[in-house]
Amino acid sequence: MTMEAPRPVTAHRVVIVGAGFGGLECAYRLKGAPVAITVIDRRNHHLFQPLLYQVATASLATSEIAWPIRYLLRDRSEVTTLFANVNGVDATNKRVVLEDGDTVPYDTLVLATGVRHAYFGHDEWEPFAPGLKTLEDATTLRRRILVAFERAEKETDPERRAALLTFVIIGAGPTGVELAGTIAELAKDTLAPDFRNIDTHKTRVVLVEAGPRVLAGFADDLSAYAQASLENIGVEVILNQAVTECSADGVVYNGTRLQAKTLIWAAGVRASRAAEWLDAPADRASRLQVLPDLTVPGHPDIFAIGDTVTVAAPDGTPVPGIAPAAKQQGRYVAASIKARLQGKAPAPFRYHHSGSLAQIGKRKAVIDFGTIKLRGTIAWWIWGVAHIYFLIGLRNRLSVAISWLWNYIRDQRAARLITQGSSKVAR
Amino acid sequence: MTMEAPRPVTAHRVVIVGAGFGGLECAYRLKGAPVAITVIDRRNHHLFQPLLYQVATASLATSEIAWPIRYLLRDRSEVTTLFANVNGVDATNKRVVLEDGDTVPYDTLVLATGVRHAYFGHDEWEPFAPGLKTLEDATTLRRRILVAFERAEKETDPERRAALLTFVIIGAGPTGVELAGTIAELAKDTLAPDFRNIDTHKTRVVLVEAGPRVLAGFADDLSAYAQASLENIGVEVILNQAVTECSADGVVYNGTRLQAKTLIWAAGVRASRAAEWLDAPADRASRLQVLPDLTVPGHPDIFAIGDTVTVAAPDGTPVPGIAPAAKQQGRYVAASIKARLQGKAPAPFRYHHSGSLAQIGKRKAVIDFGTIKLRGTIAWWIWGVAHIYFLIGLRNRLSVAISWLWNYIRDQRAARLITQGSSKVAR
Repeated sequence: MTMEAPRPVTAHRVVIVGAGFGGLECAYRLKGAPVAITVIDRRNHHLFQPLLYQVATASLATSEIAWPIRYLLRDRSEVTTLFANVNGVDATNKRVVLEDGDTVPYDTLVLATGVRHAYFGHDEWEPFAPGLKTLEDATTLRRRILVAFERAEKETDPERRAALLTFVIIGAGPTGVELAGTIAELAKDTLAPDFRNIDTHKTRVVLVEAGPRVLAGFADDLSAYAQASLENIGVEVILNQAVTECSADGVVYNGTRLQAKTLIWAAGVRASRAAEWLDAPADRASRLQVLPDLTVPGHPDIFAIGDTVTVAAPDGTPVPGIAPAAKQQGRYVAASIKARLQGKAPAPFRYHHSGSLAQIGKRKAVIDFGTIKLRGTIAWWIWGVAHIYFLIGLRNRLSVAISWLWNYIRDQRAARLITQGSSKVAR
Repeated sequence: MTMEAPRPVTAHRVVIVGAGFGGLECAYRLKGAPVAITVIDRRNHHLFQPLLYQVATASLATSEIAWPIRYLLRDRSEVTTLFANVNGVDATNKRVVLEDGDTVPYDTLVLATGVRHAYFGHDEWEPFAPGLKTLEDATTLRRRILVAFERAEKETDPERRAALLTFVIIGAGPTGVELAGTIAELAKDTLAPDFRNIDTHKTRVVLVEAGPRVLAGFADDLSAYAQASLENIGVEVILNQAVTECSADGVVYNGTRLQAKTLIWAAGVRASRAAEWLDAPADRASRLQVLPDLTVPGHPDIFAIGDTVTVAAPDGTPVPGIAPAAKQQGRYVAASIKARLQGKAPAPFRYHHSGSLAQIGKRKAVIDFGTIKLRGTIAWWIWGVAHIYFLIGLRNRLSVAISWLWNYIRDQRAARLITQGSSKVAR
């Protein structure tokens, strides 16, 4: 069976695979173009990944940072949304192949298929050190974190109790830093009054990083500030140490064994299988190497954008895997498609780095705008306002603002729910 | 190992199993009494079950109707919360036995262990017709409902598409009526603009009831009004028909086979194993038959309350399995424990029926206060205000009010998330 977009066959068919920041932006920006668009995603929702760590740490509810894709595109009658898994691309016949065997024909294809976390050849670590890319990852992490405190409350052996109250985050990029800071505050501020047998102030949060500093993508002084701020709220920062083992008992780095029942992986990603589908050149992390116009070499009708590709910024460094970069690429591809339909040749993609933000804890964040660098309370307010601004819809903005307000004023986190299983998961 | 409540051994030890409406109310009302309390629940959260159907129909988020139990009791230093499964009661040695073998000693025990949905000897129907008692039940139902529309959008066979767009709710008590009304509105109002290949107005919502009317617990004229209102928003109400088969293809009642891919069970409940633990008399639904002072026959130090017991109201009818009844019982038991500690004998429990409420759809509800009966818009507003009032905490009240406002004004439901699995679950 073939799913045709419900449009006259004369309309140029654009198929977008993946409705993350890049794919969705591309669909938005194609508004008004003489095209029939099909958006395919294996999830029914677009996810605001920059705040996913707040779901994992019980600060936000899943529905506050995710929206049904077809709802976001409901007013665009030329857009069809498909909830399906893509298995490959038949570039010869210009069709996307779905897992169930159906195919979707395209005139122009946009691959925006993203990344998953990766374990550098140690996939066996995943059960012990889960990563954070999807809503399910976030609720799984939330369950593990909350269950660890519950088990500690009931544990009488001091050594086992200490292991239950030790949280190790591997990788000190923005996600690792944000998780470490939030878990430390969760333990110290939110949970402290709720337990009777444990002192949650004794919780150890350990951030292990293979490189020489935290937040390597930021300026040196901001990294130093972030590290000092983390240490100030009780996070132990361990640099220049690669983890060599993850197990049910803890981690090993540099020969040191650290007993810990909760490990979180924030150390690396691997791109989707897009490069494999097209037998296209890719880097070590499987990122597809696209041409300066973001097309796949040898496939002028196939664009690839976002975290799943690697492309150089004007300064020669790779474009970072962040939401604004994916959005710029989505916007560029939409403009390119429009230009081509008018017989024009688009100029190459040029990335503009607008800045990097990371929250460290309550009233602490760092912002690196290149020339302007901010830190502390001011940066934290800008961080908060920027994230609320980039959320979709007034309703979610209100809802997140209320959640943050409560967290700010009362140290209360609304989403402290252990779901998917009863206390059996705790055993 | 034995978990002792952290109190002088002289304090009277009260153990409450189950932190639903009854158990939690009992813990609240014991405030100030010279007791050491242990609250045991297999969930980490108290659930506001009356609004659970709104999570199942994507109107509310899980965190809007659930609160961590230990958070609710954080200010009570004499209360210890245990996240654990109870496996039985050793009444001889006055100990609650946990699944992991630990025991918790009590002087007075309060069993408030609730109910699960029951299939009247047809447990094999559960995979096809899931019920609604827990947060996980609700997110599972939400996924099934949303995935059915997604699959219908992609289905080209008209018969299979019709089956995907047919939703059968079995049982027309408040939960069944509320689910039927909300699913009809979800299809008609919320989802209609989002799909391209299906007309969600053609969704069939069928409510099958074995008895002669919907909302059997309400007055006759309110039942008739509820039925007319349901039919008005497109729900097909089928009365006096017992379902004789549930399968992956649909249901059979009275020899009629109805093709439907989504079935929901709202037809009956079975009490917890509390009666079994104590070898105590129980009714057909396993409800423990308690004495007029809510103690278990032969066990004056064990109270049982809420949905898991059966006890007669002053008019001779059984006390209904609703939140206010459980709360009254929790309050009564707390007062009884206090009275006993002062050497007094408490009077028997007397149930006061304050009324029954059910929402049918937007601007439609029925309220049966006995002498006063309300229906329509006024009843709907009272229903909404009452439910917001009974929620715990300003934050959740605000959050639910905003969710309802958006739903009311814009027909938008914020929590339309398919989680726990990618599109694979749709296959």
